[in-house]
Amino acid sequence: MLKATIKNSQKLIENSSGKNRLARKITLALIETALRAANPRSVVKKNLLLKRNKLIIKGKTFDLNSLNNIYVVGGGKASGAMAETVEEVLGDRISGGCVNILKGTRNQFKTSKIELVEASHPVPDMNGLQGAKKMMSLVGEAQEGDLVLCLISGGGSALIPLPVEGVSLEDLQEVNRALLKSGAEINVMNAVRKHLSAVKGGNLAKAAYPATVVSLIISDVVGDPLETIASGPTVPDPTTYQDAINYLKEYNIWDICPEGVKKHLNRGLEGKYPETPKPGDPIFERVFNLIIATNRMACLAAQEEGRKRGLKSLVLTTFLEGEARDAGVLVSGIAKEIFYYNIPWKKPVIVILGGETTVTVRGKGRGGRNQELALSAALKLRGVEGVVIGSVASDGIDGFSNAAGAIIDGQTIDEAKRRGLDALSYLLDNNSTAFFESIDDCLVFTGPTGTNVNDLVFIAVV
Amino acid sequence: MLKATIKNSQKLIENSSGKNRLARKITLALIETALRAANPRSVVKKNLLLKRNKLIIKGKTFDLNSLNNIYVVGGGKASGAMAETVEEVLGDRISGGCVNILKGTRNQFKTSKIELVEASHPVPDMNGLQGAKKMMSLVGEAQEGDLVLCLISGGGSALIPLPVEGVSLEDLQEVNRALLKSGAEINVMNAVRKHLSAVKGGNLAKAAYPATVVSLIISDVVGDPLETIASGPTVPDPTTYQDAINYLKEYNIWDICPEGVKKHLNRGLEGKYPETPKPGDPIFERVFNLIIATNRMACLAAQEEGRKRGLKSLVLTTFLEGEARDAGVLVSGIAKEIFYYNIPWKKPVIVILGGETTVTVRGKGRGGRNQELALSAALKLRGVEGVVIGSVASDGIDGFSNAAGAIIDGQTIDEAKRRGLDALSYLLDNNSTAFFESIDDCLVFTGPTGTNVNDLVFIAVV
Repeated sequence: MLKATIKNSQKLIENSSGKNRLARKITLALIETALRAANPRSVVKKNLLLKRNKLIIKGKTFDLNSLNNIYVVGGGKASGAMAETVEEVLGDRISGGCVNILKGTRNQFKTSKIELVEASHPVPDMNGLQGAKKMMSLVGEAQEGDLVLCLISGGGSALIPLPVEGVSLEDLQEVNRALLKSGAEINVMNAVRKHLSAVKGGNLAKAAYPATVVSLIISDVVGDPLETIASGPTVPDPTTYQDAINYLKEYNIWDICPEGVKKHLNRGLEGKYPETPKPGDPIFERVFNLIIATNRMACLAAQEEGRKRGLKSLVLTTFLEGEARDAGVLVSGIAKEIFYYNIPWKKPVIVILGGETTVTVRGKGRGGRNQELALSAALKLRGVEGVVIGSVASDGIDGFSNAAGAIIDGQTIDEAKRRGLDALSYLLDNNSTAFFESIDDCLVFTGPTGTNVNDLVFIAVV
Repeated sequence: MLKATIKNSQKLIENSSGKNRLARKITLALIETALRAANPRSVVKKNLLLKRNKLIIKGKTFDLNSLNNIYVVGGGKASGAMAETVEEVLGDRISGGCVNILKGTRNQFKTSKIELVEASHPVPDMNGLQGAKKMMSLVGEAQEGDLVLCLISGGGSALIPLPVEGVSLEDLQEVNRALLKSGAEINVMNAVRKHLSAVKGGNLAKAAYPATVVSLIISDVVGDPLETIASGPTVPDPTTYQDAINYLKEYNIWDICPEGVKKHLNRGLEGKYPETPKPGDPIFERVFNLIIATNRMACLAAQEEGRKRGLKSLVLTTFLEGEARDAGVLVSGIAKEIFYYNIPWKKPVIVILGGETTVTVRGKGRGGRNQELALSAALKLRGVEGVVIGSVASDGIDGFSNAAGAIIDGQTIDEAKRRGLDALSYLLDNNSTAFFESIDDCLVFTGPTGTNVNDLVFIAVV
């Protein structure tokens, strides 16, 4: 059994009573379940099975006798725990490996076959680049009959940087900054990034050919688009050099691009440097991209847990986006309709939403998107009983706080009033952390969970 | 049969085909049904029945033989149509009446027993005050055995202004402006308003005592709090003079209040002027506040219509609030979960939301909250098929446009691109009306509907 993820569960229920207490207990139990469903160790264990001479990866069976080497590569915020678990399962069957992990986390993981390289995030560094080179050299050696296990999770894009020849890390950063500033959409940014990288946009899979490639992927992108998670190192890239150049021109970045970048893209356009592998490319016949943890899976696990407890439970959406405080209003609106009218579901009921909201900072406070959502919901839920809303970041770090998020009920705002706090002012000042720090039973603490499948929002009406 | 409310239905489906066309047709039919369910004429007809010698008001039966006089008073945006219909039903049984209606709409209604007085909205005027005086004089004459029918709808607060003695219309406006500027919540504003009015906060019902009072109410307030709709002229007021003074001090308005206002409130506090009638006051034993149209009723009527058509249909919430563009993102997120995963409902399904969003204007464009919601949703729904989102203001006037709202599908943004429009820029400039004017098949036109039960949002996934 895993240890409890929420560290202060008792504190979060001890001040409440009756239906609020019940709703809080259920919400905390479901948060716990959802976070476990996204735990990299448990999802790797669940999806990577060794049975006699068979290796079963998410239902796909490989005969170990006909596999020569197994190499393990990859990178991302969850990849240290993933690598450690892969080694626990495969042990000496691993021929070699290199995985890039977050700087400062090396001593959390124990591996002997897989080298763990600390790299910087979100701004890539030379360590990351060295690790990426080792990975490319490993997969370059892989032959037909070999298996490359690629461990992908959020942050992988920055953690495995490998610019093409003639382009430096600084060049990449300059282009990235300009793209971010331009307000370009993610597909625009990725078209450019993939055409400046030797890893992204399917290039890692291409380098591993003719070996079989299995990517185990933990998704931190709403909607789980394979080509976007960690910039899709083992996923076909439909975009072209022409697209990349067009986008840079459209967003007025082309003229300020470093010379190396322009030169490379022009060479690519002239066919002097290979394209990223495209959908339909035969190399992908040997590539299996397997998502093993997503926001949806975490939500559905919580739904299942709710049902086991005899409660009607359902996932409303895993595409929750938009401004956190408005999401809070909406979530409370759903809660109120159930509470007052039993519409569209008769209470007791659990409604689960997943996704990731944003906070447009206008105030000067300390906060996080989940806490802001919860505070906003609390303001709309004064006086109702047996309604709890919980919102947490699955990585355990909500915004600029050391809390994962918060849970609130119909008493939260009155409790704040008793303590002389004006909740609305705190919300308007983006000061949700300070608000909840002044109340004993709202902030949810898990510590860093080592995974990221975005945020989870629970509505419990009992 | 009523005429079709949507004037351009044909235009809204002729460019689409397949599942999009089907989803548009259904959405338009449900909008039509919802608007009819809020139509003041039809809801009065449905709830006010004359059967032999019995008057049946929303299931409550009055013996006409034991009723002496029937007086009709009230005011609000829907009250002209309500008064006309009441007269159609009761005819000569009406002894007299006076109802305040929107300026410029007198010639739309035909009554002979009920005087219709044009008054100004949202800033009250002397006409409104004169009408209010007539109402008070009518209900003042009413005796035991008489019935006062009070027709209440949104806008009634401004349309029936009657300041207490010693307070002028200008004084009221000054206090109102200060309250609005202070950001005070509606319950704060109403506590003050009710203690400066001879009509609001149950005072009309008090004046009518010992006659029986039946209020027919069309709600334009999310959540339908009786004491808030038109400031509750026939509803108990739990707030006191002390509350009103405390609030004004708390929000730093007391010191800048007109002398007449301060004097009146102090007199009230000293018991020299009567309190508004409180919950439990015996006068309310003869008062029946009957809500005959709400956002929820409109949503449920649409749900029923969807079900009649064999489609799973449900109301998710009637507490939709918050920033319009974020509500659009959320609504599209629900649509996507259904479209891609059949979660939490298997398609085809209709999801209905009601409420009223707001637009924080940051750009310079022309728009309305429903159109902004629809535009924001469209940006998130590119490429899906058979998904339509429709958002309309039930009064037929969305923001500063002459459209009621808009419907969009997965083709809307591509269609805009073909016409050279960058949808995101329009959204960021709060320019949703200009955006949709450039596309043929999105804006929904109904003209003013003469009712207001807030906004209706439909998600159709077929």
